[in-house]
Amino acid sequence: MKSDIQIAQEAKMEPIIKIAEKINLSEDDIELYGKYKCKISLDVLDKNKDKKDGKLILVTAINPTPAGEGKSTVTVGLGQGFCKKGRNAIIALREPSLGPVFGIKGGAAGGGYAQVVPMEDINLHFTGDMHAITSANNLLCASIDNHIHQGNVLRIDSRRISFKRVMDMNDRALRHIVVGMGGKVNGFLREDGFTITVASEVMAILCLARNLKDLKERMGEILIAYDLDGNPVYAKQLEVQGAMTLLMKDAVKPNLVQTLENTPAIIHGGPFANIAHGCNSILATKIALKLSDIVITEAGFGADLGAEKFLDIKCRYGELNPDCVVLVATIRALKHHGGVKKEDLNTEDVEALKKGIVNLEKQIENIKQYKVPVVVAINRFLTDSIDEIKFIKKFCKNLGVKVALSDVWARGGEGAFELVDIIEDVLANEVSNYEPLYDSEESIEDKVSAIARKIYGADGVTYSPAAKKQIQELEKFGLDKLPICMAKTQYSLSDNPSLLGRPEGFQILVQEVKVSNGAGFIVVLAGNVMTMPGLPKSPAANRMDILDDGEIVGLF
Amino acid sequence: MKSDIQIAQEAKMEPIIKIAEKINLSEDDIELYGKYKCKISLDVLDKNKDKKDGKLILVTAINPTPAGEGKSTVTVGLGQGFCKKGRNAIIALREPSLGPVFGIKGGAAGGGYAQVVPMEDINLHFTGDMHAITSANNLLCASIDNHIHQGNVLRIDSRRISFKRVMDMNDRALRHIVVGMGGKVNGFLREDGFTITVASEVMAILCLARNLKDLKERMGEILIAYDLDGNPVYAKQLEVQGAMTLLMKDAVKPNLVQTLENTPAIIHGGPFANIAHGCNSILATKIALKLSDIVITEAGFGADLGAEKFLDIKCRYGELNPDCVVLVATIRALKHHGGVKKEDLNTEDVEALKKGIVNLEKQIENIKQYKVPVVVAINRFLTDSIDEIKFIKKFCKNLGVKVALSDVWARGGEGAFELVDIIEDVLANEVSNYEPLYDSEESIEDKVSAIARKIYGADGVTYSPAAKKQIQELEKFGLDKLPICMAKTQYSLSDNPSLLGRPEGFQILVQEVKVSNGAGFIVVLAGNVMTMPGLPKSPAANRMDILDDGEIVGLF
Repeated sequence: MKSDIQIAQEAKMEPIIKIAEKINLSEDDIELYGKYKCKISLDVLDKNKDKKDGKLILVTAINPTPAGEGKSTVTVGLGQGFCKKGRNAIIALREPSLGPVFGIKGGAAGGGYAQVVPMEDINLHFTGDMHAITSANNLLCASIDNHIHQGNVLRIDSRRISFKRVMDMNDRALRHIVVGMGGKVNGFLREDGFTITVASEVMAILCLARNLKDLKERMGEILIAYDLDGNPVYAKQLEVQGAMTLLMKDAVKPNLVQTLENTPAIIHGGPFANIAHGCNSILATKIALKLSDIVITEAGFGADLGAEKFLDIKCRYGELNPDCVVLVATIRALKHHGGVKKEDLNTEDVEALKKGIVNLEKQIENIKQYKVPVVVAINRFLTDSIDEIKFIKKFCKNLGVKVALSDVWARGGEGAFELVDIIEDVLANEVSNYEPLYDSEESIEDKVSAIARKIYGADGVTYSPAAKKQIQELEKFGLDKLPICMAKTQYSLSDNPSLLGRPEGFQILVQEVKVSNGAGFIVVLAGNVMTMPGLPKSPAANRMDILDDGEIVGLF
Repeated sequence: MKSDIQIAQEAKMEPIIKIAEKINLSEDDIELYGKYKCKISLDVLDKNKDKKDGKLILVTAINPTPAGEGKSTVTVGLGQGFCKKGRNAIIALREPSLGPVFGIKGGAAGGGYAQVVPMEDINLHFTGDMHAITSANNLLCASIDNHIHQGNVLRIDSRRISFKRVMDMNDRALRHIVVGMGGKVNGFLREDGFTITVASEVMAILCLARNLKDLKERMGEILIAYDLDGNPVYAKQLEVQGAMTLLMKDAVKPNLVQTLENTPAIIHGGPFANIAHGCNSILATKIALKLSDIVITEAGFGADLGAEKFLDIKCRYGELNPDCVVLVATIRALKHHGGVKKEDLNTEDVEALKKGIVNLEKQIENIKQYKVPVVVAINRFLTDSIDEIKFIKKFCKNLGVKVALSDVWARGGEGAFELVDIIEDVLANEVSNYEPLYDSEESIEDKVSAIARKIYGADGVTYSPAAKKQIQELEKFGLDKLPICMAKTQYSLSDNPSLLGRPEGFQILVQEVKVSNGAGFIVVLAGNVMTMPGLPKSPAANRMDILDDGEIVGLF
């Protein structure tokens, strides 16, 4: 069996100019980065402002399991399927982070015959967006310490600086550091830490900005610290939002690449799905909607986190109206939710499937709360039995939800035809009356409660004393009227990763509440979130190489 | 008077494809980065291997002063001058570092009517080379701490890790830090520090590598630490040189841009000129030599540091044969060497010029030691008096050295015609018998002594006890048979920045000796070298902006 990189390297890519032409982009609308990547000018939005938007389809999933669900693969394959059926479709994906490529992951851009290419570039520096974010973030950090060093007119409390340096690397040694050692010339000593670039608020801002002006305003609104009197200090007080935005002048433009079947794919932005909202950029999605009839996009983790944030944060800020949500599940993963161990997942077990399918059921209910039509995609594995497939199809039918098998990993776009047909049916016959779950103007507790009760199925929410104090502080400074960005385990509907299926009778314990004021959401942490990964004992980096003739090995 | 960025923004750039065509590069030889930048494939070297190299001209200078010498401006203007006279010339420059752009500098790519463009891009992320170097460097660092965390099979002594993390930012707070805090999951506590990216050994390696294979081998040879038995530990022992080289797969390709007059300019690599060798890449220079009749390149600081390293390190590894050296001086700077204060430099003072010209005299003698023809370029200022110009011309004539005025800042290529003519004369009538100053196989002390006595004019060299021990250690491990890279003040021929003109009767005090084994040189420090700058009280970043319509302000 061929590896992903082998399949990717065998792909017959078209010059990206040709792909751009297909979606009516002229040479003036794009900037080439080599022959197979380009950036799309933001002017395209204005040029097409009178054009009707295409249909917007979100791909999400059940709660992820070690079995793997293949959400990105289905997203890519679905785009290929629509195009193969003659439809004008564009895929809008997130950019992968460089750091994890060297850790366990080794690369990610779909899989099998449903991949975006050139995968080596997409997985490495791509068009430099991550590096621009790193630079903008770290310019702000250097400015903070420089401000303190140069006299600290703003009276920044060096014990309360919340904005951290970033690096696009898995580097655990940088999680918690002391900076400013070495005496007077090196500034004031303080505790600090690095997070990985995708966890930067600058990344979230890039993904929620509607234009250059909005980007700059949001940069300025970043809450970086509190002063010695306890008042918030914002980036704009350091007068650095202009330079930060200047550093992002190219990064703000969405990137165009293609799939193995030459389907246009816009890949832009990739914020964390826990402490941020886990979706590609609003600008990329909006441009894709102007350039095609069908846009297929995805959100991080399962529907309780990814789709919730897509619908409550991204669609709210982007004024987007999703037309259909595709919920990806695998029989293996549902059996895992039913209590089957990883090593037994390849054995038929309809009883376990019956037990585990409640996770899918709850996620279907969740999407329905937003009044958006939902369809289920079963991402097929060779080990799926006929009885298992029959069971799941019947289960969905009883819920009144359409379901299709997807076999895009092995068959590419053709493997999505069944799914394409039911989505076409939904788009033609069902109406989306999308509305967000809560009003941003509600109190933080009310908004969190809405998510916890309605989406997670919790009985209620408990707050740590620290979280209560943090909420009071945000209210005091008028920073509470923003959407909520929940950070909890992705493995369970609850905040306990071991509660699989559809847990009941639980409380969500909120441990910390903070604001990403530039991005425009309140981060509510129910559990620890690691924002700087580490390398494993045997990192993927050790198996990567570029041979003397330029051949690349070890990305997969 | 127009600012540099105004002049640059008014430039009529040609599409870079056209510039590439001029120097016989086909579309397959280049990769576009937007319309005005491209990378050049390394295959070009092989394709043209039977073609005769063009002439190689190095631009260097007297010891720099606060008055400014304009070495880069002369380099750019000279290239423009050759092309305006109908010659096929290419300029080969260093890439600017992003960090200092936000500090005092605000941007750098020549000046006035002798600039390379697009200056906004060149000064910001350009084609991402700096970011690739940062990533490769920091992957190695993360691998070091990860190795220790995962059991430390190599028994790396965490007190003796010499390879540091880098960031392309002026950030003094990162100069000296403690990493690995926070308990077991974050690894072992140790002291560390960041240097700015251009000070990374990976940058020096990029600039000295002859091909991809050589690049990878040098990455593997980086000495990262000593083990608990005192033996050296190399990057290759962490098996990470393949991934590091993979990260550099595009960065290794030289970048092509143009000047204000559409002269081709290859801008690639920019190592520090103190702890590294301060020249653009060998690959860029070699490609330029294959593609043109005349290549004009520059080296950092004055001739005692920049030209010495160009001639003793770069030309040695690159097997380059320079045909002519242009020594840039200004009358203002020579008066400064003669003791005139900055505020009085605009007043005629032939006596001071007489006193200060000894600096130029010594740098002329220095170039002659390498048996390469030398010409002097007087970079003209409005305040230069006729008598001052007369004096300097006569002085050079008496030394048997050709001299020309350069007025490229105000007049572009035309302002270099006088200089072009005398260089053409030299190229036609004088022979370069280039040879390096010393044999790499000599002892470290002998090599340092050769540079100190012959180039600096010192009476001798004194070593600190630490430096003596370090030399013994390098000899013990057979790491001493490499060229020397001196790190000392650029402001004086001596190691004391206040000794201007042509100091005599001094010793060079060597404080530290270390090896950049991957790059392939021994760094000998005579004085403190700051490898991580800080931001000033009022950083240039505060005045930078990108307006809503995309106009860029504050780069100059």
